[in-house]
Amino acid sequence: MRVLFLGDIVGSPGRKALRLFLPGLLEEFRPHFVIGNAENAAGGYGLTEKIAEELFALGLDLLTSGNHIWKREFLPYLARSERVLRPANYPEGAPGRGATVLEKDGRKLAVINLEGRVFMRALQCPFRTAAALAEELRLETPCILVDFHAEATSEKIALSWYLDGRVSALIGTHTHVQTADARILPQGTAYLSDAGMCGLRDGVIGMDRKQALEMYLTQVPRRLEVPKKGTVKAEGVFLELEEESGRALRIETFRREES
Amino acid sequence: MRVLFLGDIVGSPGRKALRLFLPGLLEEFRPHFVIGNAENAAGGYGLTEKIAEELFALGLDLLTSGNHIWKREFLPYLARSERVLRPANYPEGAPGRGATVLEKDGRKLAVINLEGRVFMRALQCPFRTAAALAEELRLETPCILVDFHAEATSEKIALSWYLDGRVSALIGTHTHVQTADARILPQGTAYLSDAGMCGLRDGVIGMDRKQALEMYLTQVPRRLEVPKKGTVKAEGVFLELEEESGRALRIETFRREES
Amino acid sequence: MRVLFLGDIVGSPGRKALRLFLPGLLEEFRPHFVIGNAENAAGGYGLTEKIAEELFALGLDLLTSGNHIWKREFLPYLARSERVLRPANYPEGAPGRGATVLEKDGRKLAVINLEGRVFMRALQCPFRTAAALAEELRLETPCILVDFHAEATSEKIALSWYLDGRVSALIGTHTHVQTADARILPQGTAYLSDAGMCGLRDGVIGMDRKQALEMYLTQVPRRLEVPKKGTVKAEGVFLELEEESGRALRIETFRREES
Amino acid sequence: MRVLFLGDIVGSPGRKALRLFLPGLLEEFRPHFVIGNAENAAGGYGLTEKIAEELFALGLDLLTSGNHIWKREFLPYLARSERVLRPANYPEGAPGRGATVLEKDGRKLAVINLEGRVFMRALQCPFRTAAALAEELRLETPCILVDFHAEATSEKIALSWYLDGRVSALIGTHTHVQTADARILPQGTAYLSDAGMCGLRDGVIGMDRKQALEMYLTQVPRRLEVPKKGTVKAEGVFLELEEESGRALRIETFRREES
Ligand SMILES: [Fe+2]
Ligand SMILES: [Fe+2]
Ligand SMILES: [Fe+2]
Ligand SMILES: [Fe+2]
Ligand SMILES: [Fe+2]
Ligand SMILES: [Fe+2]
Ligand SMILES: [Fe+2]
Ligand SMILES: [Fe+2]
Repeated sequence: MRVLFLGDIVGSPGRKALRLFLPGLLEEFRPHFVIGNAENAAGGYGLTEKIAEELFALGLDLLTSGNHIWKREFLPYLARSERVLRPANYPEGAPGRGATVLEKDGRKLAVINLEGRVFMRALQCPFRTAAALAEELRLETPCILVDFHAEATSEKIALSWYLDGRVSALIGTHTHVQTADARILPQGTAYLSDAGMCGLRDGVIGMDRKQALEMYLTQVPRRLEVPKKGTVKAEGVFLELEEESGRALRIETFRREES
Repeated sequence: MRVLFLGDIVGSPGRKALRLFLPGLLEEFRPHFVIGNAENAAGGYGLTEKIAEELFALGLDLLTSGNHIWKREFLPYLARSERVLRPANYPEGAPGRGATVLEKDGRKLAVINLEGRVFMRALQCPFRTAAALAEELRLETPCILVDFHAEATSEKIALSWYLDGRVSALIGTHTHVQTADARILPQGTAYLSDAGMCGLRDGVIGMDRKQALEMYLTQVPRRLEVPKKGTVKAEGVFLELEEESGRALRIETFRREES
Repeated sequence: MRVLFLGDIVGSPGRKALRLFLPGLLEEFRPHFVIGNAENAAGGYGLTEKIAEELFALGLDLLTSGNHIWKREFLPYLARSERVLRPANYPEGAPGRGATVLEKDGRKLAVINLEGRVFMRALQCPFRTAAALAEELRLETPCILVDFHAEATSEKIALSWYLDGRVSALIGTHTHVQTADARILPQGTAYLSDAGMCGLRDGVIGMDRKQALEMYLTQVPRRLEVPKKGTVKAEGVFLELEEESGRALRIETFRREES
Repeated sequence: MRVLFLGDIVGSPGRKALRLFLPGLLEEFRPHFVIGNAENAAGGYGLTEKIAEELFALGLDLLTSGNHIWKREFLPYLARSERVLRPANYPEGAPGRGATVLEKDGRKLAVINLEGRVFMRALQCPFRTAAALAEELRLETPCILVDFHAEATSEKIALSWYLDGRVSALIGTHTHVQTADARILPQGTAYLSDAGMCGLRDGVIGMDRKQALEMYLTQVPRRLEVPKKGTVKAEGVFLELEEESGRALRIETFRREES
């Protein structure tokens, strides 16, 4: 089974990057499933129903997310959508779902979305949540992908060792910078600390760099905007899984950018 | 010289508390200067020009603030107002001023506003900023009041020892809970870890407690609102300073609440 | 039922404060149970078996703790002791216990120790943990005391509203500064944001103030020591509970210091 | 001018990695200067004089560092060494130096070490510190390398835009995971979010993975150890600078690991 995973899609440049590069990626990798992290897809903060539909129309099968998904007006859609995940380790009472099974042409891929706790919110244990969900989903399919939306490399790597052999792949998101550590762990789990992002190449993790600098220099908090113009890029990771066992056979990162 | 200092004024219940109790406090303590922290005066987050004027009309001479003062639409007023302070240890480029000298009937009181760094923003060193400002302001008056808007008791107490003998009083704000540690340090600086707040008594630091609980239980971030109804209280501290030396002669906390 | 609770006992000055003032406190309040937070009792960081025994010999029935209790060499004692609690909301696998029932002369007092998560570790939800334990302990006794070792006033107050009517008292610890907000909530739960500390009066939350200032001024991390000499104080809270219902009848803070 | 920069060297496996792979790297890249971040070189935490000398003997010209460098017993050496840097943006009073100029065969390379503030300590502004040091060092040489030891990608990228054209290269360290974003910015500054690490391949950022998992699962704090055995790797970045202008001509990451 072939899976394409896109790093955090940031604002309109992120969506533009998908329009530009996704067709070529689909042709090249011929994935059975396409997934992307959409926590920043709407103006850099959160998601909207309209933009979710736009992303599905571009060919994404499922959207994962993270700390930025909780905009009030999006919650009703999040609560009812079967194609948008939020991290599974939010406690009871948080709307939405954190895991699902995608099915297409007889192939089944389970996806778990998790959020880290180091430098982030006081969520349920992502280690235990992941293990319990993996065990449950395994009853349906051995092909299980985890999007671990987290800040600290230490937490990401620790979880990868914890899940090695229990899931097919653990892909990190949230830092918006693609890492160079793609590998397959001894028990067959593919790992990458961060998939990178789809969006503006010359901003600060996708946002206006002038505004980001103003914020860092004055420490006055401000909402950063996503510039409408500028070179865009699409980053992510391609996975190939052995369908019977769920073992990862191949993991490969990619980056496409405007010339 | 007598000074009345009011803890964080939170939303309309905070302003109501001042309308109810400030007249009595003025009568009882007969302060020469009245100061209050207004970082939460407008709906719990920040301040507006209209509400600043409302507070001045109630008898406040100066408003201090903290981490919540930086609402975009308030910045022009903050930049030009001589009666609203923001923490002095924001770096160059942040609008507004962090210290001033109040003058009334020949009496001069210098006020310095600072923000802590433990669990807060990466500001300039509050210790050095305070020492430099105190030295400069001392040329005008030995009566110097510091509002140290900070989270950690450790940082507040450490600064009080650092400034003992250099300022008349160091009063903490930000936690919205009045502490029971008012004292005068050996070199004459009055100290209190936190002045408390003016606002709703039965909320969560002035905000809606149902919403606060929802946030703690689900970890889903949300804007908390200030309830319109409910018992209000006014908390703060009264100081008496020796005018020639600037030494604190007396420090006394107060709380007034609706019966 | 009368209960005496002592705030964080810090190093040898903290133990000295108990030797000096506990006899008088016992005489004055005639408590049935005496409890103290001992997370800093050994040199300011953690606890040892020897010091635990010293505290029991002084008249304490139970020691609670917090984030500083986890010194490696103390874990075996923590694992087997029935009279030292660590926060109950550490996940499975952490040694020690987080709640217990004290029994003396036919009276039973349940005690729950919890740790906050705001600016602290990624523990289990203290709200749910407290509610579940309270329900369970209530089968044995309606008199339930909670030591909530936490930093943020917001989290402490939110938990007090959540537990109002389910426990007899929620007393905060960890900031080492006594707060002035003791009250009994509408459903009968006594509340205080922080009990204060037993230890050196003129340090920085019980530690050497010169070292603390060096750390704040240089940002170079260092272990702070507890000075051997200096004026000591004992702070805490006295509670009176209705035995049949567990409702709080009275809450009163105290401070005793060397003259 | 050719420069080889090695990511965080972690414990004895890190030193072993240098023994194994540095000779080959020197042969391949023929660098004029070799620099490595040694904040974790001694047992995973900090550095010692003995280990610093061992690293110099292996061919390193200069050691940079970060948050872990401040072990008490190392400070005297740090204070006098001309070949070990600590982040330059610690305030006055911190021992050691934060920038230097290396000179060899008539070539001069200035090196600045900085530490980030997002999720880290309350240091001086790294942006302003870097700009001031770059201006000063430029009087000696236009070839300036910055090791920005920081956690957040946002802060690292923002600083790279701020310094573009003012320094030859900004290389991030601290996360121990090499990133895939090496590039040369429009004004000639080479950039990489993180150089990666030299140390154990199958640990958790170089530390024992069993211990790391125990810590994440129980939240009980513990000192992590560096395993003595296991496959090692060396990661870093190679830079080529135009000597007259200081502009980066080439940036290339590398990884060498035991087969
Ligand atoms: Fe993101
Ligand atoms: Fe995120
Ligand atoms: Fe406030
Ligand atoms: Fe505040
Ligand atoms: Fe403590
Ligand atoms: Fe504590
Ligand atoms: Fe490191
Ligand atoms: Fe580091």
